[in-house]
Amino acid sequence: MERSVFFISDGTAITAEVVGHAVLSQFPVSTTSYTLPFVESEARAIAVSEQINALYKQSGARPLVFYSIVSPVVRAIVENSAGFCQDVVQALVAPLQQELGLAPDPVAHRTHGLTATNLTKYDARIAAIDYTLAHDDGISLRNLDQAQIILLGVSRCGKTPTSIYLAMQYGIRAANYPFIADDMDNLRLPAALKPYHDKLFGLTIDPERLAAIRDERLNNSQYASLRQCRLEINEVQSLFRNHQIPFLNSTNHSVEEMATKIMDLLGLNRRMY
Amino acid sequence: MERSVFFISDGTAITAEVVGHAVLSQFPVSTTSYTLPFVESEARAIAVSEQINALYKQSGARPLVFYSIVSPVVRAIVENSAGFCQDVVQALVAPLQQELGLAPDPVAHRTHGLTATNLTKYDARIAAIDYTLAHDDGISLRNLDQAQIILLGVSRCGKTPTSIYLAMQYGIRAANYPFIADDMDNLRLPAALKPYHDKLFGLTIDPERLAAIRDERLNNSQYASLRQCRLEINEVQSLFRNHQIPFLNSTNHSVEEMATKIMDLLGLNRRMY
Repeated sequence: MERSVFFISDGTAITAEVVGHAVLSQFPVSTTSYTLPFVESEARAIAVSEQINALYKQSGARPLVFYSIVSPVVRAIVENSAGFCQDVVQALVAPLQQELGLAPDPVAHRTHGLTATNLTKYDARIAAIDYTLAHDDGISLRNLDQAQIILLGVSRCGKTPTSIYLAMQYGIRAANYPFIADDMDNLRLPAALKPYHDKLFGLTIDPERLAAIRDERLNNSQYASLRQCRLEINEVQSLFRNHQIPFLNSTNHSVEEMATKIMDLLGLNRRMY
Repeated sequence: MERSVFFISDGTAITAEVVGHAVLSQFPVSTTSYTLPFVESEARAIAVSEQINALYKQSGARPLVFYSIVSPVVRAIVENSAGFCQDVVQALVAPLQQELGLAPDPVAHRTHGLTATNLTKYDARIAAIDYTLAHDDGISLRNLDQAQIILLGVSRCGKTPTSIYLAMQYGIRAANYPFIADDMDNLRLPAALKPYHDKLFGLTIDPERLAAIRDERLNNSQYASLRQCRLEINEVQSLFRNHQIPFLNSTNHSVEEMATKIMDLLGLNRRMY
């Protein structure tokens, strides 16, 4: 049976979404999701509660509600809806309180909000995004000494999304450099990159998946042909091996997996929260 | 007392980080964090457990461990470390099992991994990132019919990070358009944007914060002067009001808050997971 799922919070509801998805991923159930952030007032909580109750009545299946709300009054309104309500954080607060010997002091917006305490880290994250965009796709090879990582790979193997994820989520200054078809006759590591060997990280991808991705962009082109994709991937992998550049295959991995794996392999620290 | 905190998972550890940070944000405790993703083998779990135990011995304070691991054998090794171990997902699984009348079937990498089921949504997210980068900062005013949102604002008010966050996290095709100093004498809504009034969303920012951000980029410039920032913000806010374009002030909000608030106000659906 199809279930409605609500992710509700007085903040962004990102925590409720992440936890809810992680829990739901363990069950073979198909769902329709509604995310309701910034439920901060009683009036909005009442409207939310009515929405949950109406969906229950209409579908006959009890909606699942993953929530995190600091105000006891607003929270109680949501909890008193007809949904199956689960606080996504509370279950871990009590044991931690005992371990730390400290009383919890919940404040709304602390997790994904901007405060005096996290402003410096936040500004560094925004600066990392600026840097990463300015050094996307080999646009600029200046200031590479400021890069924390330089991703290498052929066109459409996942360099840009991975770089941006690293910058956005973890405040990493990630440059990336593309090898293009014209490079393939005599593929070399550009001289501008050689001083930064410790920062170089290669991406590769299965030629079949690459051809499919490129075909979406340039249908039936030489660029998207399996033959061309095989050639480029082979050349680039040889270069990675010859220069002892670590590399990963992106075919079966999300940007989240690529980014966290690369940070783990290179031992990079997160700049976040 | 300073506490060490570990976020451990057989996948990206993003869920463990998000939950752990949300719980910890309720306590006045200062922490040093270690994220250990892809703990999939017994060998790595043993190494992790030894790292936790060594830190305990060295600091005298029991490390806090937020984890999510599917394999019972690997999980048990981490749970048997000397850390204060909290499974970030398990507490919600049992009640959900009862409500759904289904047995959980935990699979590693399901939350942030790439699978046959989520590949289409994933590709749409990547396409949204491509679109957003191609339509950043007014680079292209073509294909705006494909945009789901068009952010407007002065230079350095947060348009680019917000656009990229919308694309990366939620698969939203977000264009953005800058108003520059030369526009200010006679500020108008560009003709190319007028057909898309329903997609327009304005960003504004306090002049003092804007001046500080611009000064980081161009120290002591006219561009960064408080007078210039005030002028631009005033003109742009008038334009938003005259054209009935909804807008938000980014001064005290993170990109996470801006993005989720804008999606909520415009009623945009997430394309994720």
